Amino acid sequence: DPSEPSRPAKVQELYVYEFNERDRGSPAYLRLSQKSVNALGDLVPFSNKLYTGDLQKRAGITAGICLLIENKPEKKGDRYEAIYSFYFGDYGHISVQGAYLTYEDTYLAVTGGSGVFEGAYGQVKLQQIVFPFKLFYTFYLKGIKDLPQELIVKPVEPNLAVEPSAPAKACEPHATLPNFTN
Amino acid sequence: DPSEPSRPAKVQELYVYEFNERDRGSPAYLRLSQKSVNALGDLVPFSNKLYTGDLQKRAGITAGICLLIENKPEKKGDRYEAIYSFYFGDYGHISVQGAYLTYEDTYLAVTGGSGVFEGAYGQVKLQQIVFPFKLFYTFYLKGIKDLPQELIVKPVEPNLAVEPSAPAKACEPHATLPNFTN
Amino acid sequence: DPSEPSRPAKVQELYVYEFNERDRGSPAYLRLSQKSVNALGDLVPFSNKLYTGDLQKRAGITAGICLLIENKPEKKGDRYEAIYSFYFGDYGHISVQGAYLTYEDTYLAVTGGSGVFEGAYGQVKLQQIVFPFKLFYTFYLKGIKDLPQELIVKPVEPNLAVEPSAPAKACEPHATLPNFTN
Repeated sequence: DPSEPSRPAKVQELYVYEFNERDRGSPAYLRLSQKSVNALGDLVPFSNKLYTGDLQKRAGITAGICLLIENKPEKKGDRYEAIYSFYFGDYGHISVQGAYLTYEDTYLAVTGGSGVFEGAYGQVKLQQIVFPFKLFYTFYLKGIKDLPQELIVKPVEPNLAVEPSAPAKACEPHATLPNFTN
Repeated sequence: DPSEPSRPAKVQELYVYEFNERDRGSPAYLRLSQKSVNALGDLVPFSNKLYTGDLQKRAGITAGICLLIENKPEKKGDRYEAIYSFYFGDYGHISVQGAYLTYEDTYLAVTGGSGVFEGAYGQVKLQQIVFPFKLFYTFYLKGIKDLPQELIVKPVEPNLAVEPSAPAKACEPHATLPNFTN
Repeated sequence: DPSEPSRPAKVQELYVYEFNERDRGSPAYLRLSQKSVNALGDLVPFSNKLYTGDLQKRAGITAGICLLIENKPEKKGDRYEAIYSFYFGDYGHISVQGAYLTYEDTYLAVTGGSGVFEGAYGQVKLQQIVFPFKLFYTFYLKGIKDLPQELIVKPVEPNLAVEPSAPAKACEPHATLPNFTN
């Protein structure tokens, strides 16, 4: 039936970096547990900056919340439940949900998207580089048309020294996605 | 394989109005940022009333939360991350996530649904009519069977004067969806 | 096109029990409404234990939040909007969103997953057994490959007396999923 095209099930990889440049008042650590150590009840709304995987362009922002689930003294870290979105300017957004562990990599679920990400599903690998300031993500996207060429980049291999390119950090016009989210 | 029917990928449009009639104690603006202007950390749980796009029937409610991400003085408005559901009585519900900007229309992701909306994906356009009391939504739904006839209506064009019909507002039995959510 | 396999649309049922064994500091009832009865504004982060439907294995945990939407005196209960995930150790996780009513069963949307649940969609039936300590879930999962044999169990029929088996409760090695989430 030509009115019911099949949904693309092939996997497309999308690489992005998330940086907390400490200029967005993020995160807001709400210690609502009123405990002295991180505990269930603490809520952490956040919004950081998003760059393409080659670090050459400012893509947009992340926006959402981490719910503190449990402090793990033996891991010297925390388990959070993370519910947030990645914004890519005119290209749209991707929403995700899953575990954020401060001490190891995780896979989160892609729950949907808008724009070129309309109908997206699949999962995303979260790699922590420098807690909590530098993160690298590999999206394994299904359900969408071919990604725009501008989003298909060779990623910089994650390492402690990664930084956005100076033009991208300065949001120079040639170093941003169209109408990048801010 | 007849046990694995294909998932319908055709788009079905669904129109609904959301009204805050100030009788549900909503929204609850939680100024957890403890700042004098809206800021990251503020949380806004909300629940409003939902009507069919022709304003002839009370459909149910919305329920969820907006996370204040950033105040935008230059736009005289705010960016929120919105995570909520639309309830349609016996027909089930639709969950969504994405940006809510008080100063411009946005598209949110449809992340799933129940009942006749089981398996729904796609996106929804949010149009603000009167902040924050009247909103109009156009869902572009995929993944579901044909919508019930009762939900396929010719919408009233969004305008400042839109109001639910008197019978719908009064929840008269002929002017509600079956077992409308309240 | 062999590079674009179709997404399985057959339904697979998955049964799990959620128990609050009062040893995780959960739930954290945050009475942010500052009202004397439960009201919009109250937030309830939670994390409970998850067992396979036959109660023979500890599977992992739930983690997420319930937003108090409305107290229903006539039902002697509450409506919540629930946004959470089910963790199954090495098998991955499932994220869900929808209504949690303390006085009746509901269906929530499956919004996505990771691991063996990558690409999951569909809905899940929530049955309350003993509020708020024992719940039974039937997932109707689509979009995933055949479930691992270990997850396909004959469930114990929900009843007031259900308890995890002693080995599962004690997390004995043969009575847990691989690397069960804790």
